[in-house]
Amino acid sequence: MKATMIHGERDIRFEEVPDPTISAPTDAIVKVVASCICGSDLWSYRGEDPTHEPHTIGHECLGVVEEVGADVRDVAPGDFVVVPFDHCDGTCSACLNGAPCENVGITQSGQAEYAVVTHADGSLVKTDGTPDRDLWPSLLTLSDVMATGWHAAVAAGVRRGGTAVVVGDGAVGLCGVLAAAQMGAETVVAMSRHEPRQEIARAFGATHVVAERGKEGVAAVKEILGGTGGDAVLECVGNGPAFEQAFRVARPGATVGFVGVPHGAEVPLRVMFSKNVGLAGGMAPVRRYLPELLDLVLARTIDPGRVFDLTLPLAEVADGYRAMDERTAIKVYLEP
Amino acid sequence: MKATMIHGERDIRFEEVPDPTISAPTDAIVKVVASCICGSDLWSYRGEDPTHEPHTIGHECLGVVEEVGADVRDVAPGDFVVVPFDHCDGTCSACLNGAPCENVGITQSGQAEYAVVTHADGSLVKTDGTPDRDLWPSLLTLSDVMATGWHAAVAAGVRRGGTAVVVGDGAVGLCGVLAAAQMGAETVVAMSRHEPRQEIARAFGATHVVAERGKEGVAAVKEILGGTGGDAVLECVGNGPAFEQAFRVARPGATVGFVGVPHGAEVPLRVMFSKNVGLAGGMAPVRRYLPELLDLVLARTIDPGRVFDLTLPLAEVADGYRAMDERTAIKVYLEP
Repeated sequence: MKATMIHGERDIRFEEVPDPTISAPTDAIVKVVASCICGSDLWSYRGEDPTHEPHTIGHECLGVVEEVGADVRDVAPGDFVVVPFDHCDGTCSACLNGAPCENVGITQSGQAEYAVVTHADGSLVKTDGTPDRDLWPSLLTLSDVMATGWHAAVAAGVRRGGTAVVVGDGAVGLCGVLAAAQMGAETVVAMSRHEPRQEIARAFGATHVVAERGKEGVAAVKEILGGTGGDAVLECVGNGPAFEQAFRVARPGATVGFVGVPHGAEVPLRVMFSKNVGLAGGMAPVRRYLPELLDLVLARTIDPGRVFDLTLPLAEVADGYRAMDERTAIKVYLEP
Repeated sequence: MKATMIHGERDIRFEEVPDPTISAPTDAIVKVVASCICGSDLWSYRGEDPTHEPHTIGHECLGVVEEVGADVRDVAPGDFVVVPFDHCDGTCSACLNGAPCENVGITQSGQAEYAVVTHADGSLVKTDGTPDRDLWPSLLTLSDVMATGWHAAVAAGVRRGGTAVVVGDGAVGLCGVLAAAQMGAETVVAMSRHEPRQEIARAFGATHVVAERGKEGVAAVKEILGGTGGDAVLECVGNGPAFEQAFRVARPGATVGFVGVPHGAEVPLRVMFSKNVGLAGGMAPVRRYLPELLDLVLARTIDPGRVFDLTLPLAEVADGYRAMDERTAIKVYLEP
């Protein structure tokens, strides 16, 4: 099959690789009908996570089941499925506690013609028939980015009538805004400096946008929130400055929900101690949220697919990485 | 008045100091009827927090109101009161969110004849008349240690029917065991190597005691809990090894409730990310829990005063510090 490979820093190629095979009886192979590029793919692309040898890349996809292992019961060839990037057995202590599976497998070739899903029964969520084509972008976001933004809001403890501050205006941050608004936060402050992203944030339910960062950003947030920080803070980046910003805009007693893969982030333990600001979240247990989010998308209550502002043929995936790296695109949708 | 002073490392003296005075109209002066030594006082005693110039020490006490400032309305001279170590105005954004007051004052001379309480109305909780003398030790624990153990359990999200693991067998850890049991945790594992402390832990509701530490400790906890970690973990020490232990005995998706002043502790952010283990807590907002805990003590439902295993006259406070430093006493009760 043809798949996206990373060979090194800023070296993405769409090329022939061996066809995937069923290697465990719980596996399924999914024919990819839509995929996308994740902000976390950029860590490898930029060389911050070094690539020691070429490998397939991409963990978000939507597809149709092509083949299943002997033990797979709940999905069958022909089913249209949302593929959570982190697969689950659905039975371990972590899964039962709403955390990422202890026996986790991750989609390894989402940006390809086919992807293997381990623990297919515990992972895949099928739809009734093939959903309307215009819903595919939103359905694709459930594979990771929307579920991850939702997890940030859940972890931060967003509550009806409360206030929420979202740090990060990437696709995850924007989905975090949508999640916080959907959960009923009365005030949702999006911290964003980029006009097109601010616009999506507002469309997703941000009641306020703060373009400033650092001390000025903290002051602007506090002015909006009556002199204090947010009841819930969604940290949707993962780096040092974002963590620092998140803790600074947290009200005493608040929780920072973090979902960005930590890179150079430090936890201000003394501040957490004195202000009683908690930290929760981590890698999103996507499967946990899929049924609820799927309903919201199919009912057209939420439209997270708006985060895609560039669509490319899969064969031009390298251009997609470039666009996201240069921030000329928020998130790139890839079609076979 | 006579007060406990710290002059430097392991240099505690009970000596004459100026009488305290009302310096703000919201202050009250409390005549101390019982006080005690906190594990956190040992950071200064051991020189880990250096003493640059001599000062009074001690922040836990029980007493009778002696004098109040002009604006104090809710307490009056003669009232028997529990003094939360961290005072609250009861009106700031932090207090309203259940976190330690933003304008926090701390009792500065608890181990003395008199203590000043700032924001007396927001802080002090009075009893109906003078409680039975045998209840005083338990009432005194509400000033800090029991409320702090309770905060660890609340922050860790202890729930009825769930499992809890308590790291640390100091007085706070033992109170954490009591709190977790009182909140209905079905399994409460106390990690303790010391026989007398294990005994109190069992009396407080620990269903299991694990004496091992490190990897062996983790294995022992997991064996008790059916192969996984605790739904809630109470970190009641604050140092590096205790933090590490706490995260290792946490079930994926659990929360570590921490209440010990952090000293050399590191937060394993990558573990938090992959296992979705949260961290919450910090300095206990004692006043928030006082009404509930006071009822439990007065009804003789809980008996946290059992943590005191040595009673000394206040004048012999230096011996009390020595006993706690050498771990020959768990917690020392001081009488005028």
